[in-house]
Amino acid sequence: MPELRKDPIIGRWVIIATERSKRPDELSSKANGSPDGECPFCETKEAKTPGEIFAIRKNNQPNTPGWQVRAIPSVAPFLRIEGDSDRRGHGLYDVMNSIGAHEVIVETPQHIDNIADLATEQIASVFYAYRERMMDLEKDQRFKYVLVFKNHGWSAGGGKEKHSRSQLIATPITPMRVKEELIGSRQYYDYHERCIFCDIIRQETQQKERVVCDMDGFVAVAPFASRFPFEVWILPKKHSSDFTKCDDQHRVDLARILKQVLLKLKKALDDPPYNYIIHTAPFRREKRGYWKTVNQDYHWHIEIMPRITRVAGFEWGSGFYICPIPPEDAARFLRETEI
Amino acid sequence: MPELRKDPIIGRWVIIATERSKRPDELSSKANGSPDGECPFCETKEAKTPGEIFAIRKNNQPNTPGWQVRAIPSVAPFLRIEGDSDRRGHGLYDVMNSIGAHEVIVETPQHIDNIADLATEQIASVFYAYRERMMDLEKDQRFKYVLVFKNHGWSAGGGKEKHSRSQLIATPITPMRVKEELIGSRQYYDYHERCIFCDIIRQETQQKERVVCDMDGFVAVAPFASRFPFEVWILPKKHSSDFTKCDDQHRVDLARILKQVLLKLKKALDDPPYNYIIHTAPFRREKRGYWKTVNQDYHWHIEIMPRITRVAGFEWGSGFYICPIPPEDAARFLRETEI
Repeated sequence: MPELRKDPIIGRWVIIATERSKRPDELSSKANGSPDGECPFCETKEAKTPGEIFAIRKNNQPNTPGWQVRAIPSVAPFLRIEGDSDRRGHGLYDVMNSIGAHEVIVETPQHIDNIADLATEQIASVFYAYRERMMDLEKDQRFKYVLVFKNHGWSAGGGKEKHSRSQLIATPITPMRVKEELIGSRQYYDYHERCIFCDIIRQETQQKERVVCDMDGFVAVAPFASRFPFEVWILPKKHSSDFTKCDDQHRVDLARILKQVLLKLKKALDDPPYNYIIHTAPFRREKRGYWKTVNQDYHWHIEIMPRITRVAGFEWGSGFYICPIPPEDAARFLRETEI
Repeated sequence: MPELRKDPIIGRWVIIATERSKRPDELSSKANGSPDGECPFCETKEAKTPGEIFAIRKNNQPNTPGWQVRAIPSVAPFLRIEGDSDRRGHGLYDVMNSIGAHEVIVETPQHIDNIADLATEQIASVFYAYRERMMDLEKDQRFKYVLVFKNHGWSAGGGKEKHSRSQLIATPITPMRVKEELIGSRQYYDYHERCIFCDIIRQETQQKERVVCDMDGFVAVAPFASRFPFEVWILPKKHSSDFTKCDDQHRVDLARILKQVLLKLKKALDDPPYNYIIHTAPFRREKRGYWKTVNQDYHWHIEIMPRITRVAGFEWGSGFYICPIPPEDAARFLRETEI
């Protein structure tokens, strides 16, 4: 069973694979495509993947062609769905079983690499699949959070298959970066009785210099304190703490702006590797002491991080980032990129 | 003037280059070696670098041959030594001038790539240079912290010259990761009245399974909650919060264990790219309200992070790390690696 271990000094939980002891020469990133070179994520190759957990499909026969989006278990999960977390000490350390879910959302039956190249309606269906999986996993009381993220391109951690997909990890803990955001936005709320994200959106849409696009109730901005060149956040302009509360129309609007931003990045930066991650409120916050202001202090959003520069390790060791291009210039460049 | 900007939600400061607006195609990492292909860091090429700030040298003529270690200003600094920080608001955002120092410590007059291949006495001289620069910069009341770090190898952010060197950044703020450590270790101290690092060292040297080597008053361990495969921390066994308090003998002992660990990593992992970073207490803590227990709650150390796997962006977006090899296995493998 892999373990979740807590850094005793700063409190960060880390997943430690313990199943088998990899030799160092096995650690270098290897292709995990089929040996026959066929993409296992394409329509008609359903038998090459684990059985689907969820699908948007025309016919009712699972694991057959006729689907639009498909959720399958990861073939190399770092979290196991069975058991309980069994939190315990180990001397002064904290450890628990690495229970959770690790799923892959295959975003298209066709062999298309970049979600930016899918039709808007198809991207909206991907968001619907995220939502369905999140809501299903929320029923499991062991889990506190679902992280949905995408690794596009090899140096962003993507696979070799070049078939558009994202991943979902359900965890018994709230990830540190999300927790920091929750704490920070709560402090701001306690002081101002306003959502900090709403205030940011107001300032950004007034000043306009960091806005990449503003359409259909969403705004895409280059954050004032960007960590990476061409980092872009997409936020709903109407306050909402919970991604799963988006309705059909919202998902289409979100698909439209995400496609717009990703196509601009693709054109401006020559199809860069990138990651995106959805930050949404943890499960059952209202039951965990936040009932008074739940939905008021936090604001869901998508963070998009192109990977066009090397990140030096000292940035991990220090938490100190250097962004070589001002977000104002990045936003202007993306605004002016015609797609 | 480049800016330091604060993330309004989580409070992280980021350096934003604003001097000139780079076009995206200029952002990809480029070689910064001399056009004539000569290494500017070698002895006899002193005229190719900015004038030295500090050197350990036999003759008294700066910027001439005859030196052992040399500190020079960075040719592409993100922080400027002149001016004051002029902290100010920008709507709801916080910003200050990016004052500070950015220096390069050239670790050998010879064209040697890896500090692991220098003589122990030479490495001890590098530590002496770190200390001298830290103590000199501490006199500048504008600065709170000096980060000393090394980027070895291209994918760890290293340059193309393949000449062993490290970098030093003096900043008007304490970097977030160091601050988190200071807060976490202070909380532990307040509860236990013991240094958490001392407790970790005690547990690790008793259990031994995560110890890579233990010699001369220092211990090298694979941390219980390692973020990266083969991450190794070197800690002084005798409590000390401040790297600059090391005496001559300590620096030789530290050089010996660092060389040992880096040679093991080099052999075991086939000369991997790596970063290391020194975590030490900020300047003038005693004057900032920590006088009662200063030196008691924090413990300086070096964190070494080999870069042998791709880090997916979701790890930045979530603060959630997945380590594919247990630190116990990494430590055993390194212990058994003969150098």
